[in-house]
Amino acid sequence: MTLDTQIIAALRSNTAGVSSSDLCNKLGITRAAIWARIESLRNQGYEIIASPHIGYRLVRSPDKLNADDLHAQIPSKQIIGRDLCVLEQTTSTNDEADRFARQGAREGLAVFAESQTRGRGRLGRIWSSPPRKGVWASILLRPPFTPAETTRITVMSAVSVARAIQLQTGLKPEIKWPNDILLKGRKTAGILTEMQAESDHVNYVILGIGLDVNQTQADFPAEVKPVATSLKIESGRAFSRTDIALALLRELDSDYRRLCAGKFSAIAEEWEGLCTTLGKEITVTVGNQQHRGRAESLDPSGALLLRTVFGRLERIIGGDVSIQKNR
Amino acid sequence: MTLDTQIIAALRSNTAGVSSSDLCNKLGITRAAIWARIESLRNQGYEIIASPHIGYRLVRSPDKLNADDLHAQIPSKQIIGRDLCVLEQTTSTNDEADRFARQGAREGLAVFAESQTRGRGRLGRIWSSPPRKGVWASILLRPPFTPAETTRITVMSAVSVARAIQLQTGLKPEIKWPNDILLKGRKTAGILTEMQAESDHVNYVILGIGLDVNQTQADFPAEVKPVATSLKIESGRAFSRTDIALALLRELDSDYRRLCAGKFSAIAEEWEGLCTTLGKEITVTVGNQQHRGRAESLDPSGALLLRTVFGRLERIIGGDVSIQKNR
Repeated sequence: MTLDTQIIAALRSNTAGVSSSDLCNKLGITRAAIWARIESLRNQGYEIIASPHIGYRLVRSPDKLNADDLHAQIPSKQIIGRDLCVLEQTTSTNDEADRFARQGAREGLAVFAESQTRGRGRLGRIWSSPPRKGVWASILLRPPFTPAETTRITVMSAVSVARAIQLQTGLKPEIKWPNDILLKGRKTAGILTEMQAESDHVNYVILGIGLDVNQTQADFPAEVKPVATSLKIESGRAFSRTDIALALLRELDSDYRRLCAGKFSAIAEEWEGLCTTLGKEITVTVGNQQHRGRAESLDPSGALLLRTVFGRLERIIGGDVSIQKNR
Repeated sequence: MTLDTQIIAALRSNTAGVSSSDLCNKLGITRAAIWARIESLRNQGYEIIASPHIGYRLVRSPDKLNADDLHAQIPSKQIIGRDLCVLEQTTSTNDEADRFARQGAREGLAVFAESQTRGRGRLGRIWSSPPRKGVWASILLRPPFTPAETTRITVMSAVSVARAIQLQTGLKPEIKWPNDILLKGRKTAGILTEMQAESDHVNYVILGIGLDVNQTQADFPAEVKPVATSLKIESGRAFSRTDIALALLRELDSDYRRLCAGKFSAIAEEWEGLCTTLGKEITVTVGNQQHRGRAESLDPSGALLLRTVFGRLERIIGGDVSIQKNR
């Protein structure tokens, strides 16, 4: 932990204020050194008040993801986020995480970027990722899974993202199969699960999450304006992206533990409760093919079970869903 | 095509000899230029005889994989090998092919290396790849498959490799599930299928093939000596690695077309005819788990169906097979 991280952690753990001498003792440095670090933190956007009797008090953190700051707030037992980095700008956090994975990075590594120049969604689609408006993150997982079982990770992360949003904002997210998180029918988060695998064995999974936090309508590109939204648009207020990021890592950690402990069915049940797709008559477009039917449930691998008009049950593992209009 | 490639192609297509003037007309260059290229080819190890009445005649090609030379012998309709490169040395041809794939290389790209410093087999095992002793190749495929279906590519390539060996050498290779090619019970080739995929969609597959061609017993590392063999050891003669490489590409091309045309069952049938594992009582070790039973057949996805002593059919998609001794 850097000195800055230790100072921020101390200020956070005592919101009433921490005296300069306490900080000196705790960190083993001089008053002048503390003062210099506090100045540096203020320059980074931390609002820190100093008063004679109380000492230093953290009033507000900057709207900036900071690796030290995030790290200081992650419980030591947490796997997801135990290694993390924040990049100012990158092509795609999935590409960065992939590079780390190839170099042997540990499971749980989280790569954040303040903006992405080529953020992507499923099937090569673009994910708009403007500076400091959302949480763009990729998590490295090394699950003991076969390639077919990674669908479970997409299902799991949809649940984690939805729960993190609900806990932080009070909004009621819904899931559109397989990987969209909606607020009042508009997409606010997307998940891209990529893997590097042998045919019988997953080497690693990169779980990419794009979550629109503080965009206004004007921040979205014209082509997604009608279908996109952000936490700010839906709630009328801005959120700390640091808090959102921490909530994401925490919920993912808890659900990933459940998944690895063989409790996929409990996760799938939670998923089914959040999903707007189930019970509806839908069309799933997979490449050139269209599958129509009633979305019934998830199977144990995380695939969607579709009941066709002929009564046959089809197992769908990917594609684009559109919901039939009532006629 | 380079001038060298055109000259070699002309010499190959007329084994009786090609006159200098014919070459001049065909290539549109002077006699002196032809002579200079012939000298250069001789320096690369091509044995070319020049005689007054017959002209130039190619007697022997060097024991060296040459991209131009390979390319000139690949039919234009062939997808596998239509783009290719030969590296003198690399860590692993799979890593190189992966790099090309990320840059958008076309399906069918073949990467050969004269030696690999970190050639690898399944589950991170080492594949010894000494200079100019074998064919170390990786093929880029972009099949319209789900991750679970890539097992079919491993099955397919085992058939292609076995058939290429048989056609070139007259030896009788056998397949040990899932991906070993044996000659008289010893491993002579291995296949490593790696993929980059989303959970419902394969972006690309890198098919790595290591084929031991001209090793003597002394060329193998101590730890694999008892279980490894080469085409040379089994047949008592050396083979042109160029011919072996071309046969591999040709058979892979033909089987991949069959696979993409939906004819996996025909390939699986051929596989079953070559497989020494079927019908035997085997133990499959998958991580910490052991599965015992009689290997019955392949299922439509390429997984092995194992009949346990309790009569239950288990579906195995990976692991290490050992064959039960008769007791």
